[in-house]
Amino acid sequence: MATDTHTRTSDKTPVTLLGLGAMGTALGRVWLDAGHPLTVWNRTPGKGDALAAYGARVADSAAEAVAASRLVVVCLLDDASVGEALDGADLTGKDLVNLTTGTPEQARARARWAEERGARFLDGGIMAVPSMIGAPEAGGYVFYSGSRALFDEHRATLAAPAGTSYVGEAPGHAALHDVALLSAMTAMMGGIVHAFALVRGERDIAPKEFAPLLSGWLVAMAGSVGQTAAQLESGDYTEGVVSNLAMMTAGNATLLDTAGEQGVGTELIAPFAELMAARLAEGGHDDEGTTGIVDMLRSPARRPARR
Amino acid sequence: MATDTHTRTSDKTPVTLLGLGAMGTALGRVWLDAGHPLTVWNRTPGKGDALAAYGARVADSAAEAVAASRLVVVCLLDDASVGEALDGADLTGKDLVNLTTGTPEQARARARWAEERGARFLDGGIMAVPSMIGAPEAGGYVFYSGSRALFDEHRATLAAPAGTSYVGEAPGHAALHDVALLSAMTAMMGGIVHAFALVRGERDIAPKEFAPLLSGWLVAMAGSVGQTAAQLESGDYTEGVVSNLAMMTAGNATLLDTAGEQGVGTELIAPFAELMAARLAEGGHDDEGTTGIVDMLRSPARRPARR
Repeated sequence: MATDTHTRTSDKTPVTLLGLGAMGTALGRVWLDAGHPLTVWNRTPGKGDALAAYGARVADSAAEAVAASRLVVVCLLDDASVGEALDGADLTGKDLVNLTTGTPEQARARARWAEERGARFLDGGIMAVPSMIGAPEAGGYVFYSGSRALFDEHRATLAAPAGTSYVGEAPGHAALHDVALLSAMTAMMGGIVHAFALVRGERDIAPKEFAPLLSGWLVAMAGSVGQTAAQLESGDYTEGVVSNLAMMTAGNATLLDTAGEQGVGTELIAPFAELMAARLAEGGHDDEGTTGIVDMLRSPARRPARR
Repeated sequence: MATDTHTRTSDKTPVTLLGLGAMGTALGRVWLDAGHPLTVWNRTPGKGDALAAYGARVADSAAEAVAASRLVVVCLLDDASVGEALDGADLTGKDLVNLTTGTPEQARARARWAEERGARFLDGGIMAVPSMIGAPEAGGYVFYSGSRALFDEHRATLAAPAGTSYVGEAPGHAALHDVALLSAMTAMMGGIVHAFALVRGERDIAPKEFAPLLSGWLVAMAGSVGQTAAQLESGDYTEGVVSNLAMMTAGNATLLDTAGEQGVGTELIAPFAELMAARLAEGGHDDEGTTGIVDMLRSPARRPARR
C-alpha cells in the first residue's frame, strides 16, 4: 500500500498517525489540510486510501510509519491494540501521543512502557466526535497529560484538529478527566431517556415541545457543579444549599411514585435516591445537598446494598 | 390569629394562600408587593406573622381563608395535606390552584375532587426554589395544567411570582412535566457526584478547576435532548447518530473500569450501561443511539434484572 506520491516539502512538523478509524481519519485530514507531511498506518489495509488521495504516505507497517516522523500519534481501538501495533517499532527519541481511549491506569502503564523504550509520552482524551475535528467553533477539545515538554513543543500541531487542555504531568490525568466527563454525561443521558419515557405514553405531549423545556432545565441546573466544587474545597457541605437532602429525599418519593404510575422502570434514578436516603440516615446531614455522596461513593461500607 | 388591619383597597385580584413554608411565604410576599389583597392560613400557627407584617390577613381556619377570596392557592407539604386542609371548606365557585408537589395521578384525583365540590382546578409544578420567586431574571417558572379558563383569567396574578408554562387541559400534565424534569436533573446530579468522586483522590486536581470543565461539557451535551425528541417523532432511532450504541457500549467498559481503579462505586452509571448492553444484545440496534432505551424503560421484560 505504500505510495511515493508525497513529494511536497513543508515547514510543518511531520506527523505519523497510527489508526484510521473515523477519528483517526478526521485527525489526519486536518493535518494534511494544514500542510503537515503525514505518514499513516492502519492494521486493516485500505483505510488509508482516502488520506492518500490528499497526500498522505501509507506505510506498510507500523514500524515503518513510526520511523518516518519524530511525532507519532496513535488513535487505535484500545490499549491492547497500542501495544500490539508498536511491538516491533523503534521508539527511541520519539514523541508518542496516545489518543486511544483507555483508563488512567492504562495510560500510566503505557507512559512507563514508552519511557523504557526511550520515547517521551503524552496521553490524550478526546472530548469530541469526528465531525467536530477541525471545526474549532464546534467546541471540541482534547485533554492532554504527561510530558509537558512534548506538549509545549508540539502544541501548535496538536491544536490543529481541536482545542487543547493540558491537565498535568501525571500521565493518567487526561484519561481521568475524559472518563469523569463522559461518566457524568452518561448519567445525564440516562436522566434524559427516563424523562422521555415518563411522557412517552401521553399522546398530547409532543417530544419536540418537551425537549427545549428539558434541555433548558438541565443547562440551568448544570450550574450546581460550581457549588459542589466549592463545598468540596471548603469542607462545608451546607454552603449555599437551598434544596437540602431532607427535602430532596421527600421529593424523590414523588419521582419514584410517578415512574410507577407511568409504567417506567426506576433503575436510572433509584440508586441516587437510595444514596441520598442512606446519607440522610447517617444523621447530621439534613441541611446538606448531595456533595456528601461523593465521599460515600468512595466508601463501600457506607453505601446501600444493591437490590 | 386573625387580624383586621387589612383595610387597603385594591383593583388587584384577592388571593387566598394556604401553606406558609418557605415557598408559600415567598409567593405571598410577591402578591403583597404587587398589591393583591392576601388572606393566608397555615396549619402550624405563627408562620403567617411575617406576611401579616406586610399586610396579609391571617385566617383562623382554612375554611375561613377559602371563604375570603375566589382564587385559592394551595402550597402544602403533600397531597394528603391538601385534602385535610380543605376538608371543611366550601369550594363552590372557587378557583383552586394547587402548587403542592405530587404525582400526576394525585393531581388527576384532586381535579375530580375539586370539580365534584364545584370548583375550577389548576395544578402547578414549580420549577424554582423560593429564592427565585419574584425574580423573573432568575429563570424560575411554574408548569400549569387543568382548567384553561382558570389559567387565562388569573394569568397575570399567577405570573407575578414566576414565569408560567401552560402544558394542557389534562390535570396531571403539570406534575408530569415537573417530575420528568426533576428526574432528569436527579440523574444528572448523580453523574456530577460520580465525576467528582473519580477525581477526589487526586491531590493535584482542584475541584474548582475541574468544575467548569464538567459543567461546560454537560451544557454542551444537553443539546442531545433535541436529537432524542426528533428520533422519537420520526421513529428512526439512527437519525443523526454519531456515537452509536456499539461504540458507547465499548466505551462504558472504560468508564466502569476507571471507577474500579479509582475506588468509586458504579451504581450511578452501571444501570444505564446495562440497558445499553441489553438493547445492543436485542440485535439490529448497533447504529442507534440511546433513544431505544426509552421504549425499554416502558417494557419490564426487556430490561436486565437488577443485581
